Amino acid sequence: MKNPPALEQLIDSLRCLPGVGPKSAQRMAYYLLQRDRQGASGLALSLNNALQVVDHCKLCNTFSEQAICPLCESAQRDKTVLCVVEMPTDLIMLENTRAYTGMYFVLMGRLSPLDGIGPKEIHLDKLIKRANDGIVTEVILATNYTVEGDATAHYISELLRARGIKVSRIARGMPMGGEIEYVDTGTLAQAMLERRSVFK
Amino acid sequence: MKNPPALEQLIDSLRCLPGVGPKSAQRMAYYLLQRDRQGASGLALSLNNALQVVDHCKLCNTFSEQAICPLCESAQRDKTVLCVVEMPTDLIMLENTRAYTGMYFVLMGRLSPLDGIGPKEIHLDKLIKRANDGIVTEVILATNYTVEGDATAHYISELLRARGIKVSRIARGMPMGGEIEYVDTGTLAQAMLERRSVFK
Repeated sequence: MKNPPALEQLIDSLRCLPGVGPKSAQRMAYYLLQRDRQGASGLALSLNNALQVVDHCKLCNTFSEQAICPLCESAQRDKTVLCVVEMPTDLIMLENTRAYTGMYFVLMGRLSPLDGIGPKEIHLDKLIKRANDGIVTEVILATNYTVEGDATAHYISELLRARGIKVSRIARGMPMGGEIEYVDTGTLAQAMLERRSVFK
Repeated sequence: MKNPPALEQLIDSLRCLPGVGPKSAQRMAYYLLQRDRQGASGLALSLNNALQVVDHCKLCNTFSEQAICPLCESAQRDKTVLCVVEMPTDLIMLENTRAYTGMYFVLMGRLSPLDGIGPKEIHLDKLIKRANDGIVTEVILATNYTVEGDATAHYISELLRARGIKVSRIARGMPMGGEIEYVDTGTLAQAMLERRSVFK
């Protein structure tokens, strides 16, 4: 005894979503068919539309509906600095600070050999070509301060150093509004090590 | 600064799935567009197909591709008993036991006023009509032994008793292979209360 074929097919298809196993897929399928048929047909439409129009920007590799994304095409940006981030969300976060006016490169991931993500999967050849365009003078590594993000930054910095490109990494230290009593010891130790002179 | 419109639209559409908030929806959308475009287009296809061909069986209310599902149409089934379950999964589980040969009615939920699920949402009018067809002589309530499943069974039994229909509830007690030492006290207390005579 099983569900009807079209329903089994839907349950199976829902499993392509990350973190969705057989039980949740079945729950989702039941829910959609029973309570949100409109949402389901909207989802099908959005999937097809996104697959058709969303691709990667040829320059910065982020998701874009144009071959070159609006940010890369903008004449207002400083073309001499290139900031490397892991995901489009990181780019959006940095843009929201309004503290950076240069260009970006989005890795779409981080080095993670256990998950089968190596230099090829995070488009390092494309990054090297981009950094070597003769205009870029500094590459800022803004990958996460996790073990994997750190390893990725280290790997990229070695590649770029071999090509004589100036490389920097975003600073670590106390968060704004942070109290010493509540910050974790790793961050505090780093803030101590990387202390800066108050008078120049 | 935001994602491209088609991507934002996809993230928004993914939120129709139960238990998916803005962060997971974004993660899912990124994953599909970056690593599983084939899965995404398969999902769109399955959604459209299921929406088109899957509806509820007119008799038992379960998901079916026919107006009357194969189980309700079968000549081999005992038409005099009607087993009421919450979800199609429960029906499948019961069928897999091969211990029951009667008919079913699937509520597609349980009474849960806090979630806005009342008698209408679980199709009780359809159930009453079905149980009153003149052929059914016993209704077996096989809703879950949770607070809500129990309340649902109680509510249905009152409705049916008013119409003079025989109603029973699946038994509670020790699970097969269960050891008294490890079973929960509620189950054990119930097994003691509902003990049966060994000699008839």
